[in-house]
Amino acid sequence: MLNHPFYDQIAKHISERKNAICVGLDPDIEKLPTHLPKSIEGIEIFLKTIIKSTSDKCVAYKANISFFEAYGIEGLQCLKKLRDIIPSSIPYIIDGKRGDIGNTARMQAQFLFEHLGADASTINPYMGFDAVEPFLKYKDKFHFILALTSNPGASHFQKKHLTSGKTLFEEIADSCEIWNDTYKNIGLVVGGTQGELAKLRKRNNLLYLIPGIGTQGGSAVEAFNQGKNKDGLALLNVGRAILYADNTKSFGESARNFFNTL
Amino acid sequence: MLNHPFYDQIAKHISERKNAICVGLDPDIEKLPTHLPKSIEGIEIFLKTIIKSTSDKCVAYKANISFFEAYGIEGLQCLKKLRDIIPSSIPYIIDGKRGDIGNTARMQAQFLFEHLGADASTINPYMGFDAVEPFLKYKDKFHFILALTSNPGASHFQKKHLTSGKTLFEEIADSCEIWNDTYKNIGLVVGGTQGELAKLRKRNNLLYLIPGIGTQGGSAVEAFNQGKNKDGLALLNVGRAILYADNTKSFGESARNFFNTL
Repeated sequence: MLNHPFYDQIAKHISERKNAICVGLDPDIEKLPTHLPKSIEGIEIFLKTIIKSTSDKCVAYKANISFFEAYGIEGLQCLKKLRDIIPSSIPYIIDGKRGDIGNTARMQAQFLFEHLGADASTINPYMGFDAVEPFLKYKDKFHFILALTSNPGASHFQKKHLTSGKTLFEEIADSCEIWNDTYKNIGLVVGGTQGELAKLRKRNNLLYLIPGIGTQGGSAVEAFNQGKNKDGLALLNVGRAILYADNTKSFGESARNFFNTL
Repeated sequence: MLNHPFYDQIAKHISERKNAICVGLDPDIEKLPTHLPKSIEGIEIFLKTIIKSTSDKCVAYKANISFFEAYGIEGLQCLKKLRDIIPSSIPYIIDGKRGDIGNTARMQAQFLFEHLGADASTINPYMGFDAVEPFLKYKDKFHFILALTSNPGASHFQKKHLTSGKTLFEEIADSCEIWNDTYKNIGLVVGGTQGELAKLRKRNNLLYLIPGIGTQGGSAVEAFNQGKNKDGLALLNVGRAILYADNTKSFGESARNFFNTL
């Protein structure tokens, strides 16, 4: 254990709930159950029901901020309400993939943690340590840094080999491990669709947040076994397979039933 | 010329106004002129005056979205108003440094272009082409991709050497040049504090947006001469040196006077 509120709560939930599922709260107005209005109100009812139906089953929630930004400021107002709907005992990640020069990154962190109430976020490391550090300084928050993402484009730059013999994502993962010696609140995003997951696991003991399970093609069991650290922990993000399993009035029950299939 | 509305307008302004300054509209409540309230209203009055005082002098505006997010949803409401305050003839960049898997990047682009009214944005390329392409598909918009940023952390990953002999930022710049053959709406962010600016200029003819001038230490004349492309174009972003030159009631006049010092 890390004596970190986010990490330890993840550990507790994985042990008690016998799964490692982080529910991806990424609303798509076109995919809402047919009886709900195609509006922000519809999204709010939808997410409230999803949360109510899964909050005693899942390990964590993750909301990708872009799915709310797509509906403009009204969408962000909806995102802001999630903090009060999600029980405070359930770790809540806002996936923002932020990162900027120091004084700007500080403002990004302020938005995610102080205004939107996230317990953790995701960070794009391309701009280097001073773009990451203002996040890490939120000691009680947890910070997942993009190492190897789940999309096809991961091969364009992340998998390039450096003259050191490492790939770029290995270089970033190794840097994160060093930074974590000081801050002790860093995890990595590592795609479940990537063959390199098992290999990257051997390089460090950081907590992995693993997207790409379900609709994107990765297997949950395989990803968990390959991705868990020495404490037996990993987070598997599943969005569409839980949210859009059913477009009838019983969508909440269907979302809950996902946990019986594990 | 590119027959692109953003690019051609930049060319026209640089030629007519005899400078290449993009004013960075990055409000900091702590630095507002002392007679203004330290509130969102204060920021609105401040930016309105800055824009009114500089819009017949500068080439473009750039707002870093994080400086508005720092004040929560109210801050973003203020950002949304800028679109109506900035004359439509002045190219307007929203600096978001976004980028995510395809369906998510599409939503990010929707927010910046359709809700906030940007003419151009900035993109973090770490996730590869499918994280960038949804932006490029907004053909009439312009897209500045981070190559070499102006902060110290640029050396951590961007300047690493690949086995191909290129640095990572050169690899990214070269990829952007190839993508631009198809889309013809790509520029690069290249820091004015970086010794590599002149060298990177020789690799392509893309439009460079150059931050790091002024407070961050880069010289405007040197950066323009090193960074301009074959059409004689580059954009020099200057924020704090224009916005906070004066904390008295004559701050608008002082912002305007910056253009007399060029």
